[in-house]
Amino acid sequence: MSADLRPGERLDDLCCKGLCIIQRPDAFRFGMDAVLLIAFASGKQALRVADLGTGTGVIPLLLSARLTKACFDAVELQPDMADMATRSVRFNGLESRIRVHAADLRNLPDVLPRAAYDLVTCNPPYGRAGGTLVNPDAAIRTARHEADCTVADVAAAAGQLLRNGGRLCVVFPAPRLLELLDAMRAQRLEPKRLQFVHDRADKPPYLVLCEGMRLARPMLHILPPMIVHDEHGNETQALRKAYRAEEACDP
Amino acid sequence: MSADLRPGERLDDLCCKGLCIIQRPDAFRFGMDAVLLIAFASGKQALRVADLGTGTGVIPLLLSARLTKACFDAVELQPDMADMATRSVRFNGLESRIRVHAADLRNLPDVLPRAAYDLVTCNPPYGRAGGTLVNPDAAIRTARHEADCTVADVAAAAGQLLRNGGRLCVVFPAPRLLELLDAMRAQRLEPKRLQFVHDRADKPPYLVLCEGMRLARPMLHILPPMIVHDEHGNETQALRKAYRAEEACDP
Repeated sequence: MSADLRPGERLDDLCCKGLCIIQRPDAFRFGMDAVLLIAFASGKQALRVADLGTGTGVIPLLLSARLTKACFDAVELQPDMADMATRSVRFNGLESRIRVHAADLRNLPDVLPRAAYDLVTCNPPYGRAGGTLVNPDAAIRTARHEADCTVADVAAAAGQLLRNGGRLCVVFPAPRLLELLDAMRAQRLEPKRLQFVHDRADKPPYLVLCEGMRLARPMLHILPPMIVHDEHGNETQALRKAYRAEEACDP
Repeated sequence: MSADLRPGERLDDLCCKGLCIIQRPDAFRFGMDAVLLIAFASGKQALRVADLGTGTGVIPLLLSARLTKACFDAVELQPDMADMATRSVRFNGLESRIRVHAADLRNLPDVLPRAAYDLVTCNPPYGRAGGTLVNPDAAIRTARHEADCTVADVAAAAGQLLRNGGRLCVVFPAPRLLELLDAMRAQRLEPKRLQFVHDRADKPPYLVLCEGMRLARPMLHILPPMIVHDEHGNETQALRKAYRAEEACDP
């Protein structure tokens, strides 16, 4: 089957069970943060999953190979991106498991059921709203900056979607850890797991992976640090393992 | 000069500029957590320092060698411990720089001035009040458990003692990070620096070092992880550096 590509788009191999993804090299493409989030979120089984701000759909596509019993609702504000994600889902024959919604995560009650999800994932825009490094291209701006959603919006949406005991897994800039924790706890999503991501072992973390559980009791597990490169600049075994989807797929 | 030792006590060399400390091998002795806190807290100059729950006084003794212009008030609830600390101060000839107060940190206004300190340090008791692992020896119980003070008490005392911009530096169990952050922020001590302490790079952190600054604006710096042992079980260079007081002494 050939991919349904628009001008400027290309089909990239996800190197996982034959999965492919449609991306536009000149627009937003997925990065290592999405891959780390997928590895972080997929340790436990889940049947119903929502991915907020799905972009080109990389998270539900790759998670579908790990959480083999799960169905996914993927929400994306930008219609072009949602359309690309929809075509990627179709190309991979995953229409029965992944539904893409062109919708605003600040207004989900009309789109998705409440208190129904086991897992919500989000690789949210990182730039603070009103920050100075705003990209003039609107698509990249929405994907990278908080023009159209804040971490508080993400937590509020997850708070509505998750069943009690359901989990929100997010990747976020490490220096903004407190903001993330506050946003989660304001929605009664208790932080349960944290992992800091360091480029090298002797550098400060630049990302944090965080799991909050709805209405859980306080008990935080901080994982060993995820070190991305060793002292020679080579990818670490931990990073390569995060990229090897098959390894962590559930049976 | 010979040390003024009571039965069961001994004089230990602190391996720093000839400093010694009186300890009782059968009662509470200082550990690696105190040494890591001293290294963490001594990066910036300070003139007036308070150490809460000083025990045998190891923190003001060792900090006096690093913060060479500082004067210290050391507060200890247990009279025996405060007496040991007082005799250690005298033995080292530091009476003009370190004053030991046998006092309750929950009732400091009568003892120490408000809003006067640049730095407050605390290696607080770690066991939760009402926890099950309570040591039958009362001195160890108070030093290791929250029988007589909680992290909220420590933060409240620091909130009173610190000038605006003054710093509270604490070492605490990493799994209780959120409790520590909450206690600090409740007293308007904004968390500014965090460092996690791991026994090995592939283990979760067991301690966290945290600096809160009074009335500071939010901006958290998470430091590279402090790894205590390498993969062969040997002490890391980072740990050995924390122990080498001279290295970080200010000029």
